[in-house]
Amino acid sequence: MLHFSHLSKRPMKHLLSLEDLSRADIESILSRVSGFKRHRTSHARPLAGQTWALLFSKSSTRTRVSFEVGLRELGANVMFLSAADIQLGRGEPIRDTARVLGRMVHGAVVRTFAQQDVVEFAQYSGIPTINALTDDEHPCQILTDLFTFQELGGAPITGRLVTFVGDAACNVPASWIFAAARLGFQLRLAAPASYQPGDELLRRAGGSPGPAPAGAPAGTECWYFPTGATVVRTPDLHWAAAGADLLYTDVWVSMGKESESARRLQELSGYQINAPVVARANPGALVTHCLPAYRGKEIDEATLEAHAATIFTQAENRLHTQKAIVDWMLS
Amino acid sequence: MLHFSHLSKRPMKHLLSLEDLSRADIESILSRVSGFKRHRTSHARPLAGQTWALLFSKSSTRTRVSFEVGLRELGANVMFLSAADIQLGRGEPIRDTARVLGRMVHGAVVRTFAQQDVVEFAQYSGIPTINALTDDEHPCQILTDLFTFQELGGAPITGRLVTFVGDAACNVPASWIFAAARLGFQLRLAAPASYQPGDELLRRAGGSPGPAPAGAPAGTECWYFPTGATVVRTPDLHWAAAGADLLYTDVWVSMGKESESARRLQELSGYQINAPVVARANPGALVTHCLPAYRGKEIDEATLEAHAATIFTQAENRLHTQKAIVDWMLS
Amino acid sequence: MLHFSHLSKRPMKHLLSLEDLSRADIESILSRVSGFKRHRTSHARPLAGQTWALLFSKSSTRTRVSFEVGLRELGANVMFLSAADIQLGRGEPIRDTARVLGRMVHGAVVRTFAQQDVVEFAQYSGIPTINALTDDEHPCQILTDLFTFQELGGAPITGRLVTFVGDAACNVPASWIFAAARLGFQLRLAAPASYQPGDELLRRAGGSPGPAPAGAPAGTECWYFPTGATVVRTPDLHWAAAGADLLYTDVWVSMGKESESARRLQELSGYQINAPVVARANPGALVTHCLPAYRGKEIDEATLEAHAATIFTQAENRLHTQKAIVDWMLS
Repeated sequence: MLHFSHLSKRPMKHLLSLEDLSRADIESILSRVSGFKRHRTSHARPLAGQTWALLFSKSSTRTRVSFEVGLRELGANVMFLSAADIQLGRGEPIRDTARVLGRMVHGAVVRTFAQQDVVEFAQYSGIPTINALTDDEHPCQILTDLFTFQELGGAPITGRLVTFVGDAACNVPASWIFAAARLGFQLRLAAPASYQPGDELLRRAGGSPGPAPAGAPAGTECWYFPTGATVVRTPDLHWAAAGADLLYTDVWVSMGKESESARRLQELSGYQINAPVVARANPGALVTHCLPAYRGKEIDEATLEAHAATIFTQAENRLHTQKAIVDWMLS
Repeated sequence: MLHFSHLSKRPMKHLLSLEDLSRADIESILSRVSGFKRHRTSHARPLAGQTWALLFSKSSTRTRVSFEVGLRELGANVMFLSAADIQLGRGEPIRDTARVLGRMVHGAVVRTFAQQDVVEFAQYSGIPTINALTDDEHPCQILTDLFTFQELGGAPITGRLVTFVGDAACNVPASWIFAAARLGFQLRLAAPASYQPGDELLRRAGGSPGPAPAGAPAGTECWYFPTGATVVRTPDLHWAAAGADLLYTDVWVSMGKESESARRLQELSGYQINAPVVARANPGALVTHCLPAYRGKEIDEATLEAHAATIFTQAENRLHTQKAIVDWMLS
Repeated sequence: MLHFSHLSKRPMKHLLSLEDLSRADIESILSRVSGFKRHRTSHARPLAGQTWALLFSKSSTRTRVSFEVGLRELGANVMFLSAADIQLGRGEPIRDTARVLGRMVHGAVVRTFAQQDVVEFAQYSGIPTINALTDDEHPCQILTDLFTFQELGGAPITGRLVTFVGDAACNVPASWIFAAARLGFQLRLAAPASYQPGDELLRRAGGSPGPAPAGAPAGTECWYFPTGATVVRTPDLHWAAAGADLLYTDVWVSMGKESESARRLQELSGYQINAPVVARANPGALVTHCLPAYRGKEIDEATLEAHAATIFTQAENRLHTQKAIVDWMLS
C-alpha cells in the first residue's frame, strides 16, 4: 500500500538493470553520450533546482565522483550519503527510508548489495532511481563500456567479439551478458568453471544451450540468443582471446570478498591479460579494465600502461554516459 | 571576552529551543510554512551566496537531508561536518571551533548532545544557529509536528488533546511540553513513572501542580499553565488516549541508549500504539511518529501503515518547516 | 608515460610547496588577498561550472571549511573525499586515481602524508593541484600568516624578526624557513636540538651556516641566505623572543604523533608562549597560533585569549588567502 499523493501519474523511468532495457533503450542512451561529452559544461541543465541523493553502502571513487560531477553539471545539487550516514537495508526498513527521501529529493543513485533493495527503493520512493552497482548488475559501467567501444573502436558492437577474462560470476559480466543478449554480439567468458555464471542467468537473458563451435577446447559451452548473440563459457583463455575485438577484465577480489582473497588469487592466476593474451586478439583490439587495477594480478603493468589511454578514457566516459542515462530517464 | 569586530550590531535570532520561543514566535514560524510547501522550488533564495554548516555529532537521515535540501533551496551552499570531521565538545573547545566557523560560514545547524554546547556555539560563533537535536530539546521536530497538526487536522492545536506515548523523559516530549505551555493545549504523557519528565522541567515551562482530573487513574499528576495548558503525567495509556486528537510516539531506544535496550523494551512494553489504543482516541485523530519506527515496539505494523500518509507527510514537513524557521530567523 | 590528450599545452600552475615559489610568486599571491577579503561574496567567480575535489587523508576543520567555502565563493562545486572515501597512496596507486580524477574534476586540494604523493598527483592528474598539508610543508598556512602579518602588523615582513616556538622539525616551520629564505627576514626557531630542522633542509632553502650573533646563548646556530634572511636554531626561548615582531606556535603533538605524546609534552614543556615570553618581544608584537590550540601546553589560556583577535583573524584569513592562491594559479 503506497501513499504518494504528491506523485504525478506519468510513468517513471528508472535504471535498475541492463536486464530491464530493450535494444532501443540501450541505443537511445548511447546516442546521447557524444553530445554530453562534446559539450561538457555547455549543455542544458535539466535538473536545475533539484537535489539528488547518492546512497552508497559501498565506498567508491569512480562511481561517486562521476555521478557527483555529472549530476551537478546537469544542474542538480547532490547529497552523498554513505553507509555510515544511512543504513540502507539494515536498521530502518528500505521502504521507510525510501518514503522519506522520496518526498525530499528528486532522484537517487543507489550502490548497495542486494538488487532487491534498489528495486524496493525505486518502488517506495517514487523518484527516478539508478542502480550504481549491486551484487547482481552494474548497468552504468556496461553502458559506458558499450559507448567506449563505439567511440574508440569506431564501429557498432553488434556482431563483434568481446572476451571477458577473470571472475565471470559477478555483476559486471552479468550485465555484459544482458548487453550481448540485447545487442547481438559474441561474449566469451574466460574463467575456471567455478567462476562462470549459472544456467539460470543465461536463460533469464533469453539464451538456450547449443553446440560448442568447432575446435573449441574441452569444457567450452555455448549459449545462443534470438538476437544472434552467443555467450561462451570456456576455461581456455588463449582460445577465448583469439580474434577478440575487446579484451576486458575486472578485479579478482572485489569489495566484500577479501576473506576469499588467497583462494581467488590462486584459482584465477592463469587468467591474466598480458602480452601473449593480447597477441591472440585482433590487431587494434581494445584492452580495458573497469578499475581499480591490481597490477600483476588480472593484468600486468606493461599491458595496463600500454592501454592506459583506452582504460582512462573509459573511466572518463562514466561521467558522460551517466549524464546520458539521466537525460534518457527524464525523456 | 569576545572578539567579533566583523559582526554587525543588530540582534541575531537563533533557534536553540522551544523554551526560548513565545507564542508569537511559534505562530510567526508556523504561518510561513504553507508558502514554502506550496512553492517548493519557486520561492525566494534569501541565502544566495552563503554557506551554511551542518555540525552533526550524531548521525541522522531525516534531519540531515531535510536541512541540506532546504538550505540549498533557500540559495545556500551546505557543508556537512560529521563527528568524525569535527569533534564538537571534545578535542578543541567549542568556543574555538565556533570562533573559526563564525568567520567562515554564514549559519550553522548543530546536532549534538549537551544543550549547553549549542548555546555556547551560538554565542561564540556570532552566526545564526539552529538546534537540530540535543539531549534537552528537538525544536525543529515539534514545530514541524505543530504545523502538521494544523495542516492535516484542519484546526489550531490550542484547546486540543495531544497524547504522547512512550519514553516521555527525553528531548521530543520536553519540546512538546514547552509547546503546550506556550500554545495552551492539553498534553498527556503516557509512560511509566521512571520515563516521565521531572518537576523541574514543568516548573521551568511555567507550570504548577494541581488536582488530577476527576476519574483519573492512580498515579496521574496534573500541571496547570497560565495559558490554559495542562500537562498530565499518567501511567495509564488507555485513559491517556481517550479523546485524543493526536497520538504521538517516538523510538524507545534512541541513539546512545543502546546499552539500556533490553531494560527499556521490557519497561515500555505496555506503551505501544496499536488498534485498541487508536480506538480510544477521537474519530479522525491523527496518529504519528517522528521516525525511525520500530514495528512491534512503540507502534505495530498495521497501525504504522494505516497512518503512513500522516507519518510521511510529517517527515516531509521537516523540510518546509525548517525553511520557515530560517526565514523567521532572518526576519 | 602520460596519456592526456584532453589537456591543453599551456603551462599549469600548482601550489605544491613554498619551496617552489619565488619572491615574485609570493608577492603576487599576497597582493590578491585584500581584494578577496574586502569583497567576500561580490568578487568574480572564475571557477563557475567547475567541480574541485578535496582529497583529505587527514581530517581537518579549518583547512576543509576554508577551502570548501572559498572554492564555492569562486563559483566551483566542491566534492570532499576523505581517507575513508579514497585511499590516496594506499590501495590504488596515486597515478591511477590521479588519471581518473583529472578527467572528471577541474582542480584538486590534497591533504596527505608524503609530499611525493601530492607531486605525483599533480603530475598525473594534469589539473591544478594545491598542497593543503603534507609531512613536509603547509604552504597555504604560511602564505596566510604572511598576509596576516602585513595586515595586522601594518608593514612588510622583510627585515623583521619572527620567532617560532615549539616543534620546529615539522611542516609549518619548514614552510616558514622557505618563506624567510625568499622574503629576507629573520626566523628564530626556539626548540630543543632534537626538534630542530636538519642542515639538509636549510641548504635546500639556499642557506649557508655562519657565525652566531654576538651574545647568543650556547647551542645557537645561524644560517645565512642570499636574500639577507637568517634562520637561527636556538634552545633558548627567552633569548629567541627578545625583540620579536611575531611570536608563533603550533601544537606539540600533531595528528599521527599521538604515540609520542608523553615524551613530546615532557621535552617541549619549556617552550610555552606565555606572559613572560611575550614581555620579551617588541611592543605591539603579534602573537599567533595556527590552531587547534592546547591551553596550558604550547600557549597558556590567558595569552591565547588576549591575542584571540589576531589568532582568529589569521584563521579567517585562510579563506581569503586560499582564494588568492587559486586566482594566482589561474593567472
